Amino acid sequence: MNKSTHSPDLTLLSRYIPRTPSIGSTTVTHEDHVHLSFGFAAPSLFPLVELEHASGAAIRSHGQEALQYAGAPGPAYIVNWIKERAHRNGIDATPNHILVTYGATQGLALAAQLLLEPGDEVWTEAPTFFSALQAFRLSGAHIRSFPLEADGLNVELLEQALQQARTAGRPMPKLLYTMPTYHNPGGVTLSVAKRHRLVELAREYHFYVLEDDAYGELNFTGELWPTLYSLAPERTIYLNTFSKIIAPGLRLGWMIAHPQLIDRLRILMLGGSTGVFTQEIVATLLQHIDIDRHLEQLRTHYREQRDVMAAAIDRHFGDAVYYVLPAGGFFLWLNFREAIDTTSLQQRALDYGVSIVDGRSFYPERDVHHQLRLCFSYCSAEQIEQGIARLAAAYRDDRAAELGEVALTALEYHNGA
Amino acid sequence: MNKSTHSPDLTLLSRYIPRTPSIGSTTVTHEDHVHLSFGFAAPSLFPLVELEHASGAAIRSHGQEALQYAGAPGPAYIVNWIKERAHRNGIDATPNHILVTYGATQGLALAAQLLLEPGDEVWTEAPTFFSALQAFRLSGAHIRSFPLEADGLNVELLEQALQQARTAGRPMPKLLYTMPTYHNPGGVTLSVAKRHRLVELAREYHFYVLEDDAYGELNFTGELWPTLYSLAPERTIYLNTFSKIIAPGLRLGWMIAHPQLIDRLRILMLGGSTGVFTQEIVATLLQHIDIDRHLEQLRTHYREQRDVMAAAIDRHFGDAVYYVLPAGGFFLWLNFREAIDTTSLQQRALDYGVSIVDGRSFYPERDVHHQLRLCFSYCSAEQIEQGIARLAAAYRDDRAAELGEVALTALEYHNGA
Repeated sequence: MNKSTHSPDLTLLSRYIPRTPSIGSTTVTHEDHVHLSFGFAAPSLFPLVELEHASGAAIRSHGQEALQYAGAPGPAYIVNWIKERAHRNGIDATPNHILVTYGATQGLALAAQLLLEPGDEVWTEAPTFFSALQAFRLSGAHIRSFPLEADGLNVELLEQALQQARTAGRPMPKLLYTMPTYHNPGGVTLSVAKRHRLVELAREYHFYVLEDDAYGELNFTGELWPTLYSLAPERTIYLNTFSKIIAPGLRLGWMIAHPQLIDRLRILMLGGSTGVFTQEIVATLLQHIDIDRHLEQLRTHYREQRDVMAAAIDRHFGDAVYYVLPAGGFFLWLNFREAIDTTSLQQRALDYGVSIVDGRSFYPERDVHHQLRLCFSYCSAEQIEQGIARLAAAYRDDRAAELGEVALTALEYHNGA
Repeated sequence: MNKSTHSPDLTLLSRYIPRTPSIGSTTVTHEDHVHLSFGFAAPSLFPLVELEHASGAAIRSHGQEALQYAGAPGPAYIVNWIKERAHRNGIDATPNHILVTYGATQGLALAAQLLLEPGDEVWTEAPTFFSALQAFRLSGAHIRSFPLEADGLNVELLEQALQQARTAGRPMPKLLYTMPTYHNPGGVTLSVAKRHRLVELAREYHFYVLEDDAYGELNFTGELWPTLYSLAPERTIYLNTFSKIIAPGLRLGWMIAHPQLIDRLRILMLGGSTGVFTQEIVATLLQHIDIDRHLEQLRTHYREQRDVMAAAIDRHFGDAVYYVLPAGGFFLWLNFREAIDTTSLQQRALDYGVSIVDGRSFYPERDVHHQLRLCFSYCSAEQIEQGIARLAAAYRDDRAAELGEVALTALEYHNGA
């Protein structure tokens, strides 16, 4: 049986599969490390007791059907729940507009498969969510990106590019991927005026908008943003997820799109219904939980965590950095005024016991960038304080090393800390 | 908000998406219908009590981690369980050889994405599993199929085709999809001699074998079959699932392949870990269930159901049909001696209150076929008796209608039955 050590035939792989699998950016394992890299929900706010109750009740009430392929009442209940919730956010959907997916991640993969053929154009923000970039790369599409500003995507540059491409007869985008509200990693939100302009462009230049609204419910200000879907339902494929509002381990999300698109997305699922057992449990949970109260707890908690992080950054970094204070979501995008290499800083920060994600991971081109992503949702307030302090020490060390000065080594810092 | 009634722009769809979504073959809704079409596990044998216990225990013990992205001890436990189980079936795998998927269905989609580009050749059996055909069609590959015999795939014809393609300089297959053991829908099993020949061909002609072993554990005879993976691990991508041995609604399956392939398959999952909450529950279940005893119950039950179905067929159809008695699995593939159209019979059978799947659904070409699939796993013995009697009546009616004779209408039959 030692034939399993033979090498497989890699010449047969699709040309869109990377030849060298990349290593994830978070390989940290030390117990005392602070993980400001993890874009995770706060585990202390998972509704564990309610979920345990819901699991038992779902299995007792509907076990035989819930464990079969098609499921019991749960999947229909969830679709209806999504419909009602979407309606509150200005989205007019019927059950035929809704497809439950394995998280918003599967929504990205399905949208890419639905539209993109090798060589097609997909346009994104820069920075943007790395899993989206990966999904588009795997489809063989060509990615072009447009800068993110304090009020979201630079729609003016997008419009110029669309005009130029049309005039020059170059390939037009099939899809524009955007996270308009509480951007990952940028932390910014697309202004209302830009939202209207963006969907006008989608209509004028005949592309779909893939709207990732994963953080939309985590609103710290009470200010409401119209979804792009509500402005142009025929031009938008909308993604959302239970990962941020209940728990990511459930792996349940949803897409909202025109029924003619949903019908075709179902085909891509090859007859499999998304995790019906989990759906039955979540449906039971949703019947017994006060979701608005739960969301208020999440918003309050994450807002406080954001404030702790922002205060620590101001204290430790002062004028060396700038950022847009996020009005929701999980992430703070830190910009350095000096042109430092955050990939190098990321490595040094690990020596100091804090993980971050370098800017490069969020850009299609993967050049050097003077930006990095910090997540304030997962760690405790104390850990955030400690993590930012460690990051500042790593930064000073990095700068000192670059300037040729004698600096404390990470080892000395650790021993003395 | 009534813009949602606007038609979406279908010109932007990938050309590999069907223009007309097909309607599933099972649209039956009558309560008194017998569903011999459903390829479902027997719900009475789901370990519901154990699962309820496992859900509670998993949430209490590991809830916070199990609901996060990466999960708690469950995913590692399951990989180890798969490793041990595979070892008993002659497969030498490490955890790096194993990827947990959303059922074997996701395994099909991932294998297609890993290897197939538009225009590539993928070769299959005929008949074959319809979801596999769908996955290959969606990748834009060209499908060529080879007949299934009483001892599985006609390997001789396959070899001739490989020789001819090589000689003529035509495109060679990248992938051969096969279900060697307890075939869906064919009910047949590939002989040991053919297994050896098939993997020799894979080596000689440089293609991968995609081995679907979904029914492998449901063995009615005690006779053991070497997996193709055990014979040529470097040339095989192996699929299996918990759907048949625990419950389909969990949507958990696995792939076994060389670590260099598994690394790349992980990329296709875009950083999402397959249903970690469900994995934690199933891991807890596997620690508390006697799986061998459970499998013996399943095998005994399904063997008895198969015998009930075979006896009913013999009684009602006699010499009008022939079939290979399945030595395992869920399905009996019924061949009519006359060249009847089972798509027409499928419709008439619905009028008589029984659902079946026509032969056409299992062939790449979708021509008329004189075969149909019956499933003996889902219905009770009484329902199977009744279903076969109804099917025989529908068949007689169908034949009589074709021969121009006066026949009982379905309505009269129902009223009199």
